[in-house]
Amino acid sequence: MRLVLGQLVDALGDAVSTDAATLVAAQADKSGHRSASAPLAVVSARSIADVQSVMRIATATGTPVVTRGAGTGLAGGAIASAGEIVLDVARMDRILEISEADQLAVVEPGILNGRFNEILAARGFWFAPDPASRAISTVGGNIATNAGGLLCAKYGVTRDAVLGLKVVLADGRLLDLGHRSVKGVTGLDLTALMVGSEGLLGVIVEATVRIRRAVPGTVATIAAYFPSVTDAAAAAAAITSAGIQPAVMELMDSASLEAAATLLALPGISTGEAHLVVQTDGPAAQEEANAAYAVIGSLGGRAALSTDLVEGERLLAVRRSMHPAMERLGTTLIEDVSVPRSALPAMFAEIVRIEQHYGIRIPTVAHAGDGNLHPNFVFSGTEVPEKVWQAADELFGAALRLGGTLTGEHGIGILKKRWLGLELGDDQLDLQRQIKQVFDPLGILNPGKVF
Amino acid sequence: MRLVLGQLVDALGDAVSTDAATLVAAQADKSGHRSASAPLAVVSARSIADVQSVMRIATATGTPVVTRGAGTGLAGGAIASAGEIVLDVARMDRILEISEADQLAVVEPGILNGRFNEILAARGFWFAPDPASRAISTVGGNIATNAGGLLCAKYGVTRDAVLGLKVVLADGRLLDLGHRSVKGVTGLDLTALMVGSEGLLGVIVEATVRIRRAVPGTVATIAAYFPSVTDAAAAAAAITSAGIQPAVMELMDSASLEAAATLLALPGISTGEAHLVVQTDGPAAQEEANAAYAVIGSLGGRAALSTDLVEGERLLAVRRSMHPAMERLGTTLIEDVSVPRSALPAMFAEIVRIEQHYGIRIPTVAHAGDGNLHPNFVFSGTEVPEKVWQAADELFGAALRLGGTLTGEHGIGILKKRWLGLELGDDQLDLQRQIKQVFDPLGILNPGKVF
Ligand SMILES: Cc1cc2nc3c(=O)[nH]c(=O)nc-3n(C[C@H](O)[C@H](O)[C@H](O)COP(=O)(O)OP(=O)(O)OC[C@H]3O[C@@H](n4cnc5c(N)ncnc54)[C@H](O)[C@@H]3O)c2cc1C
Ligand SMILES: Cc1cc2nc3c(=O)[nH]c(=O)nc-3n(C[C@H](O)[C@H](O)[C@H](O)COP(=O)(O)OP(=O)(O)OC[C@H]3O[C@@H](n4cnc5c(N)ncnc54)[C@H](O)[C@@H]3O)c2cc1C
Repeated sequence: MRLVLGQLVDALGDAVSTDAATLVAAQADKSGHRSASAPLAVVSARSIADVQSVMRIATATGTPVVTRGAGTGLAGGAIASAGEIVLDVARMDRILEISEADQLAVVEPGILNGRFNEILAARGFWFAPDPASRAISTVGGNIATNAGGLLCAKYGVTRDAVLGLKVVLADGRLLDLGHRSVKGVTGLDLTALMVGSEGLLGVIVEATVRIRRAVPGTVATIAAYFPSVTDAAAAAAAITSAGIQPAVMELMDSASLEAAATLLALPGISTGEAHLVVQTDGPAAQEEANAAYAVIGSLGGRAALSTDLVEGERLLAVRRSMHPAMERLGTTLIEDVSVPRSALPAMFAEIVRIEQHYGIRIPTVAHAGDGNLHPNFVFSGTEVPEKVWQAADELFGAALRLGGTLTGEHGIGILKKRWLGLELGDDQLDLQRQIKQVFDPLGILNPGKVF
Repeated sequence: MRLVLGQLVDALGDAVSTDAATLVAAQADKSGHRSASAPLAVVSARSIADVQSVMRIATATGTPVVTRGAGTGLAGGAIASAGEIVLDVARMDRILEISEADQLAVVEPGILNGRFNEILAARGFWFAPDPASRAISTVGGNIATNAGGLLCAKYGVTRDAVLGLKVVLADGRLLDLGHRSVKGVTGLDLTALMVGSEGLLGVIVEATVRIRRAVPGTVATIAAYFPSVTDAAAAAAAITSAGIQPAVMELMDSASLEAAATLLALPGISTGEAHLVVQTDGPAAQEEANAAYAVIGSLGGRAALSTDLVEGERLLAVRRSMHPAMERLGTTLIEDVSVPRSALPAMFAEIVRIEQHYGIRIPTVAHAGDGNLHPNFVFSGTEVPEKVWQAADELFGAALRLGGTLTGEHGIGILKKRWLGLELGDDQLDLQRQIKQVFDPLGILNPGKVF
């Protein structure tokens, strides 16, 4: 340990930090989880060479390394414990190039998604991945988790935005994956394999990402209220079936709406009501919004529609208040199952069943456009009670039975490790472990995570 | 050999074929390449169980297997030689499910892209991957090559359309990768890794693919002629820079246009002229077409624009005649480099330089919307002359220098094997080989291809 620390300090000087506050911060992310012991050191890398130095020392000494972006992850993937080096890349935050002609940008991993988008916006461009955490999460972290967000159904997930990556391997070698061209099929697609790999395969030190031209036209927002979550889910399905492609379509069940209404002191919400918010954009925004508005009305929703930007933000306020509203209720375990769109009503029915069986409430919000649900388990104290894990277990089983997945966008990390085999099966799990071993034969990259 | 054949016949009966014509057909694809010797047998699988039987026998006996779809590949990936079993999946061609609500379909690998699209069209849907070969190529082959086409810049490549895959491993085990939900980040993304893997990692026996609702609105087509390919390339770049997103934007240089004009007896084309054809669709089709038309005019192009479907097809005829026009000139080696969009003019300049240096013509067509070029090397006889390989070598070097790739959509197969290391570098190549070994420890899947 002392030896490792000495080598790190020799190689990286004051980039190495061992002060208590820094170490404690690296024991947690935003999952609510915290490791039992402090890591060895936090290295704040400033360059690819720094990352390579850390990995060379780690390989030479067999020391585990946990790569960390902004630490906003919800699966515990960036959490470090005793004996581990935290490789913090948040300070590698430069934009190296923006090419408007090629509609791409080259960035370091630590740039915040929100800051990147501010700079792009000034040129009439944007980076589509839009996790709700975009103001505070890094592009490298978005890539390592294949982050989603509100706009995925229309504008894709992070994987769809990544053209190429520079990656430092466990032994310190630098790989250049992918290309700057839109298309390319030379060899196996290791770029795609790196996306969503949660720090298991290598350290992403540079990314060539697709940027989009700002969407022309108006943005139309509809906020609707329905007597029940079933009605709201039916309306969401009917909107999609009508051939409308919303940019945003978010659904809140009654427990979520109730909590938001309390936080915002919202008048006129009746018990049991659910909320659906829809946003359309592009050249057909107004037309699509009118059509969606009609569908909502015909299915018993009362709705407001606006193409005014300020009013639109106001209509989104209820959805945006979800996270703070949950925080007021207690400690929250935010789950992340995803099902085929058509299974949304069935999944909501399963959640009601689980709520009743365990005598708990599970306020749930869903990206209705793509079938990704975030059931929130709320409890008091800092430890997730066993009952909550049992309920979560039933939730995962239900999602898998409905043709879905354990995690739509947050990842496995440490929180969902025990269910991984349930989804992948033994053969696939074994294959995945072997691939991990090809990249990281000593098993020093984020050990104990995912597998 | 006899033993293997006996086992195959015992297990698969009349699905096993050894007649000369069938074996000879499996020695070639559409690359113009042909193997020196006939394979052991062609097994025409009818089910997943058939595929598993073949792979179990292959593993038990250490016999190489070449998976084959429709054999329309342009890289020699499906070509088989002595001692190899050809696993033909073209007869596994059922559509197992179409879910309009979830905008997905589940298909067997042998279904032809064109037939699949006919069936989808009757329901108001389509499958976006659109290789020019779509009438004759299989969806499994499209996935195994990550096929592109004319619509990629706007509608993505095959990878973007694949949600999940069933794959039979080298040893006969069946894996279920991916999911039916739009999003999912459970474990490493092996679905994405399989896409474009050219039969090296496993046999794709079922695919869950995204289908899209038919694009509403008109389709507008513009056919334009420019004094030179540089002018045409500048117009293509200006169209993109103007924020227009064509569905199709194809560029033909003067040698291509000349050949097409001869074939079609097209009047009024002057020497040196180049051709640009642009198609816009969706709600803003007319508006975008008008804007593109104006850009073309301002940059010295003479153009015709139509929103009539029949007239639109007529305007596309010159581009569509490229392949037959080349066939009239001689034997063709169709190359497939891809560069960042902004490097298109530089790449065309390199092609002119290579033409002059080798005293040959290289008629070239480009998917200008995404920077993918198809330079056609035309020669007489069946063997690619060494001079052509030298010229191709320079072409690849130039594409890589410009930030591009050896192959935008056709794959490496056997034809580009010797250049693979040039693009990937030794470290990445080594890693890719090890991943291949994880899937196929005996090296029986498509040996001698890609690596
Ligand atoms: C309020 C809130 C809202 C959220 N909303 C969303 C949402 O809408 N959609 C969504 O998908 N997520 C959401 N998240 C989760 C989280 O923000 C995302 O997962 C985000 O992508 C993580 O980025 P980060 O920089 O914080 O990564 P970290 O938390 O630091 O790391 C996450 C994982 O990626 C690895 N990693 C990080 N950087 C690298 C790198 N450079 N190379 C290799 N591995 C690396 C880590 O080891 C870890 O396993 C939300 C979180 C919060 C707190
Ligand atoms: C006229 C013409 C135009 C073309 N235009 C285009 C174009 O625009 N864009 C484009 O991308 N390509 C194009 N191609 C190339 C070719 O059609 C595509 O690569 C197509 O995807 C191959 O499909 P296939 O079924 O013919 O596959 P095959 O040629 O049979 O096989 C191709 C490769 O995939 C593997 N493979 C096939 N099926 C499976 C399976 N089920 N599981 C595992 N591996 C499998 C084979 O082993 C081989 O390596 C064109 C070809 C022609 C002749």
